[in-house]
Amino acid sequence: MKNNIDLDYNLALEIIDDIKNDPMGAWFDLPDNFPDSELARIKETAKKINETSDYLVCIGIGGSYLGARAVYEALLPLKNGKTKLLFSGNSMSEREIKKILKEIDGKDFSLNVISKSGTTLEPALAFRIFKEELIKKYGKTEAKNRIFVTTDPESGVLREEANREGYTSFEIPLGVGGRYSVLSAVGLFPLAVAGVDVEKLLDGARECKLSQTSPEKIEDSTLVSYAFTRFYLYDEENCDVEVLASFEPSLMYFNEWWKQLFGESEGKDKQGIFPASVIYSTDLHSLGQYLQDGRRNIFETFLRFGAPSPKRENPIFVPKLNDDSDGLKYLEGKTLAEISETALSATISAHSSGGISTIEISVEDEDGSGVSEKSLGFLIFFFETACAISAILHGVDPFDQPGVEKYKKEMFRLLGK
Amino acid sequence: MKNNIDLDYNLALEIIDDIKNDPMGAWFDLPDNFPDSELARIKETAKKINETSDYLVCIGIGGSYLGARAVYEALLPLKNGKTKLLFSGNSMSEREIKKILKEIDGKDFSLNVISKSGTTLEPALAFRIFKEELIKKYGKTEAKNRIFVTTDPESGVLREEANREGYTSFEIPLGVGGRYSVLSAVGLFPLAVAGVDVEKLLDGARECKLSQTSPEKIEDSTLVSYAFTRFYLYDEENCDVEVLASFEPSLMYFNEWWKQLFGESEGKDKQGIFPASVIYSTDLHSLGQYLQDGRRNIFETFLRFGAPSPKRENPIFVPKLNDDSDGLKYLEGKTLAEISETALSATISAHSSGGISTIEISVEDEDGSGVSEKSLGFLIFFFETACAISAILHGVDPFDQPGVEKYKKEMFRLLGK
Repeated sequence: MKNNIDLDYNLALEIIDDIKNDPMGAWFDLPDNFPDSELARIKETAKKINETSDYLVCIGIGGSYLGARAVYEALLPLKNGKTKLLFSGNSMSEREIKKILKEIDGKDFSLNVISKSGTTLEPALAFRIFKEELIKKYGKTEAKNRIFVTTDPESGVLREEANREGYTSFEIPLGVGGRYSVLSAVGLFPLAVAGVDVEKLLDGARECKLSQTSPEKIEDSTLVSYAFTRFYLYDEENCDVEVLASFEPSLMYFNEWWKQLFGESEGKDKQGIFPASVIYSTDLHSLGQYLQDGRRNIFETFLRFGAPSPKRENPIFVPKLNDDSDGLKYLEGKTLAEISETALSATISAHSSGGISTIEISVEDEDGSGVSEKSLGFLIFFFETACAISAILHGVDPFDQPGVEKYKKEMFRLLGK
Repeated sequence: MKNNIDLDYNLALEIIDDIKNDPMGAWFDLPDNFPDSELARIKETAKKINETSDYLVCIGIGGSYLGARAVYEALLPLKNGKTKLLFSGNSMSEREIKKILKEIDGKDFSLNVISKSGTTLEPALAFRIFKEELIKKYGKTEAKNRIFVTTDPESGVLREEANREGYTSFEIPLGVGGRYSVLSAVGLFPLAVAGVDVEKLLDGARECKLSQTSPEKIEDSTLVSYAFTRFYLYDEENCDVEVLASFEPSLMYFNEWWKQLFGESEGKDKQGIFPASVIYSTDLHSLGQYLQDGRRNIFETFLRFGAPSPKRENPIFVPKLNDDSDGLKYLEGKTLAEISETALSATISAHSSGGISTIEISVEDEDGSGVSEKSLGFLIFFFETACAISAILHGVDPFDQPGVEKYKKEMFRLLGK
């Protein structure tokens, strides 16, 4: 990442200290303080579910949903997990519920209900529906063995029900808000069920914490540079839209996770950078036009996963043709991944010359595998910390979401609660 | 839709006339001038593919891709087509290609290559790859029977190849640009293969054209009101971000289609409204915070598909529990769709009171089925026309995309073409 602004590293360290000491800053210690015994229990339980279930229906919304889905979808093309994840309770769409009911029909399934309180409307409704399905299929006793709850350690209706009914349960640690919770049991448990190596996710996050937030490394920290640069672009250059751009379609839900993280943390007090996202190269033939030529109040943050290793398995080469009727002969012998890397550089160059500020975040994995548990773990911690720093620079609380409550209140009023 | 601005209906009619007479305005006549013989050929060919293929791999990018995908995904939860669509050639991701190769492995498939020129990089690469697969599986002769081309009527390398090899081909009519092409063979052919009733799509579009753009109905036109209101909000109220919001997760790709349409049409000459989108209620627990409390330079356009008919098949009711441990007893007896409708009203009310301008577009289908061929056809034509009007109000050409060319030029330079 290049920039020409003066970074105040002492301020950065002070803010990082504030985050650590914030009652809602407990997520900062998840990568190195995750209890071994809890990790072992997550993995054992996951293994058990792999033996009994074709599907795990994950019921949650917002921060109880997007992190697990982001990692799952990003790694899905490469995984062959024994148990597939389905996501419900994140809308009130009958079509979505029917789609899932159809998919699990005749198959074995279990539920993971993820909710701090247990009273959020969407997951509570979905829990009623899928619990009924479980009981219909397996009877009351076996249903209880197929319900896995992730909730508050002590209070709330879901904690009470788990205790009363004897469900296996995991904890959303105190001091970890929804959008900062993917590296707790909220994300790790369903991901372990899907066959994701959750220890590598934590390894990546720990590597980020060490290399990007330690006092001795702070002056080389891309994370700090990113957080300060985006605030500078907003505050001094009037850029009020940030577009997260990557070249991997499987990162679509990672983009959604990122938008929640930044939108909910910063979008308050009538200010904040509006978070948007694109997947290139597909969106070069869509929003690409706007980014090249539209209003210049936007900056673009590119994710680069490193040049692919020539040793990696089965690269796809451009097939050879006898003639050159499609004009692609000059690309024969190249891999798609190489061409995609070039497209990334070309896009940065074209948009920069169009007057857009661009930021590049590279996550190079030593094995050249690109999007992996380790690089995703690194990026998750990177963005969580950068987001908290950035929100504090903006002068808002990174950990509350008062606006979400306003809609809930209005809805309960209209529903006659 | 409510608004307090004075609409100039004569100007609207003049602009609509300009669109009709524009060399790139031929899409405006697709709903009522689609040749019967071509429609019959589309349906016959689709039927043949249903007999020979489990999958149709649709190769295209941007406007040759998003329209078909938008309609397909929106209707997918309700359809049981004999042939499934897969979409390729819209990125350079090896993972995506591998995912599709894995899915078609051992199954029967055909290709639909959609490209005006045939030289756009992504689809041309994907065509090489999947053509090779076809020949490997079926031999050279049968492969030719499984390649269906949608391209320029006369020129370009894809037209030449289709003529030379004898592929079945369809035309992208002259005067129909990519992002305005879904109601031509570009969208209708793959959708017919998927089992979508393409005549109903055209019916919906025709209904929109008649009710929203005829001189005698212009003063009741929601379409004109929408186009002028969004320009007013941009020009007078400094709203430079529009968020399209709907409550149906299956509309995710409809949102992407909409973003291309508006972003590519308006985002030029360093101006234009930045198009963004959300799916509620999931995003109420994400960007909802920003929309409630963030910067007030945003307006929100809500899609409402009408109160669901009580007679429709199998509504999902909130299941009854003996106790009220989750606090949802007051909702028992309601359907999810009713609750979702209430959530829509609650969101508009909450965001309005937070100082956001909101626009509501209702598409009520007489059978209460909500998202259907007819309502989607209506909305496609609605947004295409509103977008063209809006771009002309902004003083830009709705039908060009000069910025896309800049990235292509830079990429070809880096690739050493």
